[in-house]
Amino acid sequence: MASAAPDERAAELGPPPRTSFASDNAAGVSPEVMAALVEANDGPALAYGEDPWSAAATDAIRELFGAPVEVLLCWGGTGANVAGLASVLHPWQAVLTPDTAHIVVDECGAPARFTGATVVPVPHVDGKLVPDALGPWLEWSGAVHHPQPRVISISQCTEMGTVYSAEEIAAICDLAHRHGLVVHVDGARIANAVAASGADVRSMLLEPGVDLMTFGFTKNGAMYGEALVHLDPELAANARFVHKQAAQLPSKARYVAAQVTALLTDDLWLRNASRANEMAALLTERLRDIDGVVLDVPVESNAVFPRLPDSSIEVLREWTFFWPWDPAESRVRWMTSFATTEDDVERFVAGVRRAV
Amino acid sequence: MASAAPDERAAELGPPPRTSFASDNAAGVSPEVMAALVEANDGPALAYGEDPWSAAATDAIRELFGAPVEVLLCWGGTGANVAGLASVLHPWQAVLTPDTAHIVVDECGAPARFTGATVVPVPHVDGKLVPDALGPWLEWSGAVHHPQPRVISISQCTEMGTVYSAEEIAAICDLAHRHGLVVHVDGARIANAVAASGADVRSMLLEPGVDLMTFGFTKNGAMYGEALVHLDPELAANARFVHKQAAQLPSKARYVAAQVTALLTDDLWLRNASRANEMAALLTERLRDIDGVVLDVPVESNAVFPRLPDSSIEVLREWTFFWPWDPAESRVRWMTSFATTEDDVERFVAGVRRAV
Amino acid sequence: MASAAPDERAAELGPPPRTSFASDNAAGVSPEVMAALVEANDGPALAYGEDPWSAAATDAIRELFGAPVEVLLCWGGTGANVAGLASVLHPWQAVLTPDTAHIVVDECGAPARFTGATVVPVPHVDGKLVPDALGPWLEWSGAVHHPQPRVISISQCTEMGTVYSAEEIAAICDLAHRHGLVVHVDGARIANAVAASGADVRSMLLEPGVDLMTFGFTKNGAMYGEALVHLDPELAANARFVHKQAAQLPSKARYVAAQVTALLTDDLWLRNASRANEMAALLTERLRDIDGVVLDVPVESNAVFPRLPDSSIEVLREWTFFWPWDPAESRVRWMTSFATTEDDVERFVAGVRRAV
Amino acid sequence: MASAAPDERAAELGPPPRTSFASDNAAGVSPEVMAALVEANDGPALAYGEDPWSAAATDAIRELFGAPVEVLLCWGGTGANVAGLASVLHPWQAVLTPDTAHIVVDECGAPARFTGATVVPVPHVDGKLVPDALGPWLEWSGAVHHPQPRVISISQCTEMGTVYSAEEIAAICDLAHRHGLVVHVDGARIANAVAASGADVRSMLLEPGVDLMTFGFTKNGAMYGEALVHLDPELAANARFVHKQAAQLPSKARYVAAQVTALLTDDLWLRNASRANEMAALLTERLRDIDGVVLDVPVESNAVFPRLPDSSIEVLREWTFFWPWDPAESRVRWMTSFATTEDDVERFVAGVRRAV
Repeated sequence: MASAAPDERAAELGPPPRTSFASDNAAGVSPEVMAALVEANDGPALAYGEDPWSAAATDAIRELFGAPVEVLLCWGGTGANVAGLASVLHPWQAVLTPDTAHIVVDECGAPARFTGATVVPVPHVDGKLVPDALGPWLEWSGAVHHPQPRVISISQCTEMGTVYSAEEIAAICDLAHRHGLVVHVDGARIANAVAASGADVRSMLLEPGVDLMTFGFTKNGAMYGEALVHLDPELAANARFVHKQAAQLPSKARYVAAQVTALLTDDLWLRNASRANEMAALLTERLRDIDGVVLDVPVESNAVFPRLPDSSIEVLREWTFFWPWDPAESRVRWMTSFATTEDDVERFVAGVRRAV
Repeated sequence: MASAAPDERAAELGPPPRTSFASDNAAGVSPEVMAALVEANDGPALAYGEDPWSAAATDAIRELFGAPVEVLLCWGGTGANVAGLASVLHPWQAVLTPDTAHIVVDECGAPARFTGATVVPVPHVDGKLVPDALGPWLEWSGAVHHPQPRVISISQCTEMGTVYSAEEIAAICDLAHRHGLVVHVDGARIANAVAASGADVRSMLLEPGVDLMTFGFTKNGAMYGEALVHLDPELAANARFVHKQAAQLPSKARYVAAQVTALLTDDLWLRNASRANEMAALLTERLRDIDGVVLDVPVESNAVFPRLPDSSIEVLREWTFFWPWDPAESRVRWMTSFATTEDDVERFVAGVRRAV
Repeated sequence: MASAAPDERAAELGPPPRTSFASDNAAGVSPEVMAALVEANDGPALAYGEDPWSAAATDAIRELFGAPVEVLLCWGGTGANVAGLASVLHPWQAVLTPDTAHIVVDECGAPARFTGATVVPVPHVDGKLVPDALGPWLEWSGAVHHPQPRVISISQCTEMGTVYSAEEIAAICDLAHRHGLVVHVDGARIANAVAASGADVRSMLLEPGVDLMTFGFTKNGAMYGEALVHLDPELAANARFVHKQAAQLPSKARYVAAQVTALLTDDLWLRNASRANEMAALLTERLRDIDGVVLDVPVESNAVFPRLPDSSIEVLREWTFFWPWDPAESRVRWMTSFATTEDDVERFVAGVRRAV
Repeated sequence: MASAAPDERAAELGPPPRTSFASDNAAGVSPEVMAALVEANDGPALAYGEDPWSAAATDAIRELFGAPVEVLLCWGGTGANVAGLASVLHPWQAVLTPDTAHIVVDECGAPARFTGATVVPVPHVDGKLVPDALGPWLEWSGAVHHPQPRVISISQCTEMGTVYSAEEIAAICDLAHRHGLVVHVDGARIANAVAASGADVRSMLLEPGVDLMTFGFTKNGAMYGEALVHLDPELAANARFVHKQAAQLPSKARYVAAQVTALLTDDLWLRNASRANEMAALLTERLRDIDGVVLDVPVESNAVFPRLPDSSIEVLREWTFFWPWDPAESRVRWMTSFATTEDDVERFVAGVRRAV
């Protein structure tokens, strides 16, 4: 097929999948979430969180953790990360985080701009932070010439789709707390991590010592909305002012809250995440026997980072759009979501097989 | 009734209105908007605005203005104001704005923090900016010791519910442009202003010379979402980066876009706003013959700022919640919305009559 | 003289004064300070304040206050104000300060930019803050929509040359502390205030309850350098990091310190300030009998704010430069310094008499 | 000597050097500079750079470059870096710089805080930026999700004492300009680089295409003061406002200017720098035959980064203070200055020989 134009070659790959493998935020909204939005649209409600839906969402999250965590509902993931980090940082302090982190790479510098603090990118291993790598920056503590380490931020799942074990998180928290730092988790895909590990948020996050987190809902079936959760409620003393100043306080907050409650009801959030994870596992399994597809990053949640020939990348992206990850390595990113079907996977694999 | 407790007295005021007079964002979502959200939930769509709904919303706004304005969809009003102002300001510059402005009083300092610029509160008249009041700050231009005036920001409608005429806006724009400044309009209630004036956005905003604005939808029947519109597209050169860094780029952008399109279809936005304005006019008319209610602020859109005895304020707020405006003047704020009915107004007026 | 050009008329005013009445920072360096700089230039010294001169300057300031105040030496007044305010402010908080304040008018927005906080200009009376004017902003406390009042900042002397009494400062401090705020004093001309009042820094500042201040030296005979002094040392917990991040930590700090010590030795700072104040008093006395010179702002330190005919302002500024203050009022500012002589005053008054 | 306490062992190392090897800013002020300060202290001068000394300093720097560069005199190096970077950066942009850079490690995050921009640390080679390392970040251009590369910042000399050749600088400038970036040089030790290379600022900086720089004087014999120089004057359009807002505009500016002029007169700046470089060369030569001292970083200016046994580091620091550089590598930093004498070097080497 090499001599044809990509669009001609794409036409020969068969029917493309009906859902997108580009990102889990290409999916729509879970039917149960949409139903909750319609239901919440009944009569007046005070704005800015002074409504019963917001109270119920907070209760649902507290019940999940089995603890009096503090909850602030936010518009999106970047905003929740920014508000969370700003609630625990002075501008002369620093965040230590893997160099693959969303807050480093994908938020156009929002956390650094809004907090004024230094975001230190630390070399990663499969998207994870390795405690031993933090030494040189922890030594900055106490000297006025250096930004002062205050936060370790990790993503769960990582941006490489890997999942920290509770033990790994505990080791990071122990290191942080020994040095007077706090631990922030960017949980844009926390549902996928919890579903993948079979754990729960209490044993994975609260007990190991995570201090605050972004609890993601958008990628898992919501229309919009994430929760900034301070697992250590004392750290939230001023957070509501930060949240407002960061433009993250929704006026008609009931509609964010209704989505959160819908997803936490009857474990919908975990059922959605499990579906996404299973489809990534199925995809991985089907890809294994295709020559030219190299699978060298562990697939632990709903993302697959294969390497494949550049020419086939081009035609496949023409056929059904997805993102390159690291062009130098011919590596791409394929993601599944709660909306991905087995038929989508089979169509996609069939196309890959023809393209490679 | 004076000797009874407020809650006992409240019980004697009759059935409270079914909608809230506290704010127009206490209302829910227009049925047509909700239908559009359900309809948009069909299949995958690329995130971050790379979807057909976003393109359609931009087209609808351009058609409204009859001009190639630049459109960036935002989460909420504070965020849209912040992103808009930051797109045209350096940190050593200043925004001149009435001291009643939302960006001064109601955004917890978000614009100042995010832009780094100085927000100068200028004494207002009925919520409006008076060009003559700007003199001392315009003289700051050119001297390094002073923040450099760059933006005049006005709200349309104002926070006092008044409405600038096209001529007033033109006078402000002329002054601004003569001094090298640009004009920003916080249009959280632009629909009410357009509906009240019988004008259109072209003659009210574009032709007088407004440079950029927040185009509000939330208070007018949307669930969430505002548009940052650069009427002067050249000023938008870098705005998309500012928009992203301000955490105002929605991931599942199609759902913001679908609401915008729904509201701009068949003039729903104006019908909703007219309804709100009419209910405020009806309320004002009914209040005129109640002794003890002083109506000394012009009612030009959907807000009424009466003064009434403190004791009756207390019992009325117990009966149906609303906000005090200026306790020193015994002034309160009552707002109507697209959801307010004539029955709501009559119930409310009946309660006021009994309470005063 | 009215028909001649300003420069021709200036030539007829007689010999101009040998020092400038434009500002007290037009003066040079006290001989004793220069001698101290030469003396400090002996051998090596660790940089960044780890030197014996810095320790001695801190001791001298602590002795002056009779208390363990915290001292951070800064480059200049704007920097010291910025570092001081940033050491006690979160970005979602606000500074309440007279609208004539240097931090509002004369620092190109540096405090607002660096702190991210809102600087609220409050109407002044002769440059002073009147506690009763603060009410509307103090009511903002606790509501997330408004910037949260945290600092009251006053200048001593004020930018209008007036001097707060210890009682006035105590009243401001009491108000502040009752509301959980702290009081910052911009003491660029603290020496003039202390000399004018016959008080000392302990009774004027420490005992009334001032929390932190900029202690000015530059306008009083130093080459450069001001001290950020936390009278409440607990507020200084993180100040050294703020100081460094604000680019206010001098590398060869010994030279700042040597100047501070020189000025505090044998009350040189007060002798210099008294000289300046006396020359302003003499100037005022001599001006009283000149028709056309209106003296309606109290002269309490080293600044005079007379009103005089616009035509004479023009010719006088041609003759010896000084700044207009409020052109709308035909008001100018004349300042004296430690370097002003009686002969300078007599020459200046003679010129004014001829010009008016 | 191993069994004795460090302070006892230090006593056996002989007389310590009379100057410090800790840093070149431990040295005092050149006699010619001090004389210029005394001479400038004559009569009044308008503040904030409106004085003849400031004009003369600007002229001297322009003459040095043979070009109409723009000059803004600053207090110190961090402030000059901050003001310079802020003059060419939007907050959504990024600075690419070696991870050893002063702006990354030694300014407590000042550039990131003040600019709001992202400072990206790039792996270095002997303190230098290697153009090939920039690829991944240059690919960020154009996508709103990533900070947008705008500045490449290098230090000349580097923080490792190495010196870029004019060709290396030209290669960096070419790369930058091809991608729409500008090049900033932190020239805290530019004198040492120019002296070491035998070049001049025109052939080393202007002709290769450097856009703006911090021109350092403090470490080379000044008391305080650095110049922010925009080699491309068009980039300085707004720099004076940034300079003021960054609290870098000295009031009594004549004293900064007088030092600059003194250092540029009769090549004092180069004579001072050459002296420092020669002493480092002498030190290196003398160290070569000491067993246990490893010299594996090129010595190209006035800094030496040897590795030596930890036990001898401890005793030597007790004897004459200096800074560790990388404890993991047992690497220290020794610096010479214009004030270092041959006798100082011989004493120092003798002590090292005994300690190792």
